[in-house]
Amino acid sequence: MTKPPAAFLAAAKDLLGPKGWSEDPEQLGKVATPWRGSFTGETPFLARPASTPEAAALVKLCAAHHVALTPQGGNTGLVDAGTPHGEIVVSMTRMHAIRSVDQFNNSLVIEAGAPLVTAQQAAEDAGRLFPLSLGSEGTATIGGLISTNAGGVAVLRYGMMRDLILGLEVVLPSGEIWNGLSGLRKNNTGYDLKHLFAGAEGTLGLITAATLKLFPQVQRASAWVCCSSTEDVVSLLALVRQHAGDTVTSFEIIPSGAIAMVLEDVPGTRDPLPSDLPWRVLMEVSMVDEAHARDALEKALEAAFEQDLVKDGVVAASKAQAQSFWHIRETIPLSKRAYGTSINQDIAVPVSRIPAFIESCNAAVLEVVPSAEFVIFGHVGDGNLHYSVCEPAGANAPVLKGHTPAVTRIIYDQTMAHDGSISAEHGVGRLKRDELANLRPLAATETMRAIKRAIDPLGIMNPGRVVSV
Amino acid sequence: MTKPPAAFLAAAKDLLGPKGWSEDPEQLGKVATPWRGSFTGETPFLARPASTPEAAALVKLCAAHHVALTPQGGNTGLVDAGTPHGEIVVSMTRMHAIRSVDQFNNSLVIEAGAPLVTAQQAAEDAGRLFPLSLGSEGTATIGGLISTNAGGVAVLRYGMMRDLILGLEVVLPSGEIWNGLSGLRKNNTGYDLKHLFAGAEGTLGLITAATLKLFPQVQRASAWVCCSSTEDVVSLLALVRQHAGDTVTSFEIIPSGAIAMVLEDVPGTRDPLPSDLPWRVLMEVSMVDEAHARDALEKALEAAFEQDLVKDGVVAASKAQAQSFWHIRETIPLSKRAYGTSINQDIAVPVSRIPAFIESCNAAVLEVVPSAEFVIFGHVGDGNLHYSVCEPAGANAPVLKGHTPAVTRIIYDQTMAHDGSISAEHGVGRLKRDELANLRPLAATETMRAIKRAIDPLGIMNPGRVVSV
Repeated sequence: MTKPPAAFLAAAKDLLGPKGWSEDPEQLGKVATPWRGSFTGETPFLARPASTPEAAALVKLCAAHHVALTPQGGNTGLVDAGTPHGEIVVSMTRMHAIRSVDQFNNSLVIEAGAPLVTAQQAAEDAGRLFPLSLGSEGTATIGGLISTNAGGVAVLRYGMMRDLILGLEVVLPSGEIWNGLSGLRKNNTGYDLKHLFAGAEGTLGLITAATLKLFPQVQRASAWVCCSSTEDVVSLLALVRQHAGDTVTSFEIIPSGAIAMVLEDVPGTRDPLPSDLPWRVLMEVSMVDEAHARDALEKALEAAFEQDLVKDGVVAASKAQAQSFWHIRETIPLSKRAYGTSINQDIAVPVSRIPAFIESCNAAVLEVVPSAEFVIFGHVGDGNLHYSVCEPAGANAPVLKGHTPAVTRIIYDQTMAHDGSISAEHGVGRLKRDELANLRPLAATETMRAIKRAIDPLGIMNPGRVVSV
Repeated sequence: MTKPPAAFLAAAKDLLGPKGWSEDPEQLGKVATPWRGSFTGETPFLARPASTPEAAALVKLCAAHHVALTPQGGNTGLVDAGTPHGEIVVSMTRMHAIRSVDQFNNSLVIEAGAPLVTAQQAAEDAGRLFPLSLGSEGTATIGGLISTNAGGVAVLRYGMMRDLILGLEVVLPSGEIWNGLSGLRKNNTGYDLKHLFAGAEGTLGLITAATLKLFPQVQRASAWVCCSSTEDVVSLLALVRQHAGDTVTSFEIIPSGAIAMVLEDVPGTRDPLPSDLPWRVLMEVSMVDEAHARDALEKALEAAFEQDLVKDGVVAASKAQAQSFWHIRETIPLSKRAYGTSINQDIAVPVSRIPAFIESCNAAVLEVVPSAEFVIFGHVGDGNLHYSVCEPAGANAPVLKGHTPAVTRIIYDQTMAHDGSISAEHGVGRLKRDELANLRPLAATETMRAIKRAIDPLGIMNPGRVVSV
């Protein structure tokens, strides 16, 4: 690890003030260790700017001294995008203010370092909804969520994080500030820069604030049903949307095997509706009028029973019951067997191809590891599956050991064969950069490289993530 | 106008075949004349490729010979983006096929030259909805709608055109084809190129096909109400959304003066609810269950009467009555006085600032032209107003003559003073390019220039639109 030049360090410390930087090995070690991962990065310097002008002056210093930087939010990423590998870390967590809320425009301006819950709470206080919701919402920051274009459990209805922003404030690699904090819903005045910075994982600029889109508050109706096959699950989604339209907010698939694992590993969980059938669907319809939502959901399920798409099911009678459904869904990633030693991928295919993908991918994996078990769960409505290959129940010795590269290759190839994506919501980072350079059309990778070179000619913004230049 | 080199013309004719090109002055004149505009462009050559490989080979030829091209769809643009000024024209209208429809994935793949109605019809045939809707839908093409990021009357609920695409196929300025026709809803695999080409007005590449997002079909409930002030109109929107959530699909404002003009100019129109109040709102709520939609709309209006936000109003009792409401709204642009000699701008401000903007902009215009009248209508839900300054009723001599530059300046300045945009849905083209270079933050314009140079280093793709390089 090369240390930044002394002149840079002196100027940066002077700029940031005593609270705004650290060279303490413990603190450096903390920001260099990803939340979940089998490796540790390294960084010589941690900067914690307190304002946009401070962040801009810091980036200007980096540019002048050719010092590379890695922006960091809540450090909950999964693809080695926000872990430093010799770069200085620019942590945004001191910038967490809500700058303004506009109820009539349904928007709020918030700084990049605020955790997602802050935005959710501010929306609620204003009688509105900020719909992004995911497991790490207490830690993941607005800037990180935008930079990774986060997904979560309400994408089917509200879209990804990029769809929930109206504007951005960004420090460009030159150190110039672009104030694009527009609260406008229509603004056709040139290339859409916010969509370029969203999902760029900090490689094109440092996001310092965002204008978020707010929505009307809604009431939820939830159901938990049992299905025989993934074909039935996909048909069920179409049927529910036929009855409830795009008010279907979540449509999550859970395999019965995952429920068994959760019951075993997580104290205090119970199966809402024990059944021998292989699949569960947790679905949610949300409308302003709770009676309308329940009515639409009940009519949809009635039709589903008639068409034999659903064998058993229950509509939550209370918020507590609905929460107990969600509890099962949300504790799957905590299950030791599903996540301790398993091979996990986050893939997407067109919704219509989910059954074929699962069938042929499982078969191909079983050819390599005949006793492997599978935990395949996630956002069917978005075609997004968390696909895990696990050790078999009660095995004496691990069967996956040594097979990770071969199994990963199979999952990637099967995903691509079904017109899918090997990174649905987790992103590229360093982890999938080279694999994606092979899988993406060359014309796309070359265009991305041209953009990176044009916007960050010195290559100081989170280098080596997304695309190599 | 410089003619392209003879070697280019010979090769292009050979490539495109007899049906694929024209040098006939009448045909060239037609594609060089914008739908609405006071000028005519010029072009030496019209190319009409029949397939993506043909389009790609043509662009490769253009690159080799440094021949600039202007892509053209339905030629309904309003900002001088698709009118050639010496460039060859690449008309996409021969590429109008629907390549595939996927009901379970809620997507369809369609070629760029198909008119919008083709997509709407294909969606309907599949039991789905493609929600983009605007006046020119019989002529405007998918490629043009994406390139200009079109808006229309359902943006409040469904977003702009860029929000309705899942993937694109684009011929890059090098002549390479980028096949990004993804049907995926989640695909975090690098910079989002589709959002870069959407709204780029053909300056970064030639869109040849798109994957569109389909939605569940819905039933509509419409109401026509009379309001005293724009403050009440903005409060009414919040109230209706409180009752109907994001199922409020349209929320259009119409001034009483515009109704008078339409009744005078357009045969067969009548005022649905004559009133002395200055403003009308045409609103639409759409849900799968028509009874739910009516119920939500009626409850909202009941509350609005109680809060005195609405003085008079009617919920459409039939589809025919709803259509008669929309007829008034849609014929405003046909009114001679509102559009014949008036000064028209397409602006957006945050919804909350609509009342203040209208008040101060009107006052500033009246200082210059004391007898001017105003027609201000459009998409309140999106903060998007079509702002027209008109000749006064029954005037003997035109009062606006000579004042266009001063009045336009006032509208631009007032829009910017209210954190708005001088191009909400119509785009930049050549018409607003230089004005926007002044109004946009310099950092944004410089970033756009860097992108243009990086992706189109030869400067052959619709040069001079969006940004000068």
